[in-house]
Amino acid sequence: MADTNIPYSLNSKKVAEATWRLLEERGVHTEEIAELVMVLQKKYYPDLSMEECIENVEAVLSKREVQNAVLTGIQLDILAEQGKLLSPLQELLANDESLYGVDEILAFSIVNVYGSIGFTNYGYIDKLKPGVLERLNDKSEGIVNTFLDDIVGAIAAAASSRIAHRKQEDHEIEEGEPTAPEQE
Amino acid sequence: MADTNIPYSLNSKKVAEATWRLLEERGVHTEEIAELVMVLQKKYYPDLSMEECIENVEAVLSKREVQNAVLTGIQLDILAEQGKLLSPLQELLANDESLYGVDEILAFSIVNVYGSIGFTNYGYIDKLKPGVLERLNDKSEGIVNTFLDDIVGAIAAAASSRIAHRKQEDHEIEEGEPTAPEQE
Amino acid sequence: MADTNIPYSLNSKKVAEATWRLLEERGVHTEEIAELVMVLQKKYYPDLSMEECIENVEAVLSKREVQNAVLTGIQLDILAEQGKLLSPLQELLANDESLYGVDEILAFSIVNVYGSIGFTNYGYIDKLKPGVLERLNDKSEGIVNTFLDDIVGAIAAAASSRIAHRKQEDHEIEEGEPTAPEQE
Amino acid sequence: MADTNIPYSLNSKKVAEATWRLLEERGVHTEEIAELVMVLQKKYYPDLSMEECIENVEAVLSKREVQNAVLTGIQLDILAEQGKLLSPLQELLANDESLYGVDEILAFSIVNVYGSIGFTNYGYIDKLKPGVLERLNDKSEGIVNTFLDDIVGAIAAAASSRIAHRKQEDHEIEEGEPTAPEQE
Repeated sequence: MADTNIPYSLNSKKVAEATWRLLEERGVHTEEIAELVMVLQKKYYPDLSMEECIENVEAVLSKREVQNAVLTGIQLDILAEQGKLLSPLQELLANDESLYGVDEILAFSIVNVYGSIGFTNYGYIDKLKPGVLERLNDKSEGIVNTFLDDIVGAIAAAASSRIAHRKQEDHEIEEGEPTAPEQE
Repeated sequence: MADTNIPYSLNSKKVAEATWRLLEERGVHTEEIAELVMVLQKKYYPDLSMEECIENVEAVLSKREVQNAVLTGIQLDILAEQGKLLSPLQELLANDESLYGVDEILAFSIVNVYGSIGFTNYGYIDKLKPGVLERLNDKSEGIVNTFLDDIVGAIAAAASSRIAHRKQEDHEIEEGEPTAPEQE
Repeated sequence: MADTNIPYSLNSKKVAEATWRLLEERGVHTEEIAELVMVLQKKYYPDLSMEECIENVEAVLSKREVQNAVLTGIQLDILAEQGKLLSPLQELLANDESLYGVDEILAFSIVNVYGSIGFTNYGYIDKLKPGVLERLNDKSEGIVNTFLDDIVGAIAAAASSRIAHRKQEDHEIEEGEPTAPEQE
Repeated sequence: MADTNIPYSLNSKKVAEATWRLLEERGVHTEEIAELVMVLQKKYYPDLSMEECIENVEAVLSKREVQNAVLTGIQLDILAEQGKLLSPLQELLANDESLYGVDEILAFSIVNVYGSIGFTNYGYIDKLKPGVLERLNDKSEGIVNTFLDDIVGAIAAAASSRIAHRKQEDHEIEEGEPTAPEQE
């Protein structure tokens, strides 16, 4: 009740925490997303460690644009699971209709956070569905992950793009070359 | 009950009809979107008629990609109005938070249907908010149109792009030039 | 010389013909793009014929948005091959620098022509590089195809999306269901 | 000659410097882009200083994705000016053909760097063409700025998005609220 007197003000910490919590509640652990990053990147960087993969996934998840997409997509999955969406959106989502592309659109807003070089990684992993993506794609359990599987693949693709940018910077510093770091 | 025995199959007519119905239920008439098209295009095509504007809006609304975005965006507006979203997504949508950009992302999937030339029309009309957009942007009535105002502007921008493509074709035919029509 | 007196007027037939000619001159035949479509779609539509694949590739190539991307991308490849670009753009393109993503951006404007459902097909085929894509990716011959390989993959992905849309329509007509065809 | 023995290696400093230099050579000063940012943002942040606007424009220009788009777009403008592109791309660019949308596509890859919230700012400023954009849009001098005007508007829109993100963070710190800074 008292809430009605408190004027709205964005609280970025709440948004960030809800993002992490919802992913966990839907059964996706940061480590599993990091494993997808490893699948995508190990052939380019044989020394890549899981710690680096996790660190890069966490950086992706710190972005407001990513948090907005995660919160919106998971919300729609949950509502579809509860049968609370209007028909025919309810059926489109509950059946992961292939002509429904809003899940890919949200995924793309995530991939884009580190630029267009992540587009192919996203498509590749979304088709192959290694690791956690295979589980998320299992439709037998009455669970709706129409948005979540694309979102998780997109986070892994964005983290891979971030690694590519960082490794270039590291390489230039190592070689003693002049470098021009990207600002946040 | 019997429904559980009917396997899912997309019914495109239901999806199309729900798109039209939801726009009407949220107070947006095709004629009003056509008026936005007129605002955007009359200086380029002084002879443009309202009938043409309406026809082009209807063509935009016939696209599956557009229907998916409309159904999803309006659904989120309705749920936010009913207070049924999880916090903090509920607050982000109910307050049309400026750092929440999923509404713009959905709008862009609509604009894109007739290519990138519609990007500037969308941004322009979304800032100026003429006609129906002013009403949709009125936050005093306890109504949430966080997605709808962007969606309506995007439909108008896409219809404007379609007109630009068609007028070029008409011009070539009139001039007796060889032409190369775009296929659907 | 006389040309300077002729006012500019877009000739869509010239733009369409140049698109086809440039693809041919760069060694890409429509049939080869159609083969990529077959790779992407045969598991979903076992009866899909090469004729249908070709027809859908041709429809994609009839789109102005696609023609603009093809002409621009191939032009940049040709200029890079001739060493006529300014440094460092010359080196970025000649070496298909992985942090240069404008090729992916152009590819995406092509994929988008039939909506977001083509995103994953594009990424998948771009990673696996079957058929003509393997040849285009061969860097040993002093030929620059930095844009072309992404463009060809994107045309195949867009044609696949078009097939998915059409097959749904065919299915509804066959079943005697009411349908709602998309307008061009 | 000796160059042929030096293996290619991206030098990010050269890419960054070429970006700044080309903008200057095409007559666009950072201050002028900062003035566009001021036009877009002063009504939201009355205390915004020119120093802040410049600082945000510089951050946008430090991004690799932005540099790639600037280098590519300006290169195409220069080649069109010199009449060195193949027909009909040459005519499309030299006449800033309205159905050619690759300039908008590149602009969008710039706007996107700080997320979708910049889309409307870009469209708005591109239509109104204040300040430097009016000069860039002057077609009477035989100069081709088909890409440059969109690029400059996009940089200003991206800088505006960055300011919106930063101001939120500043606000939370000022209010003593817990905050969750975005990582680079």
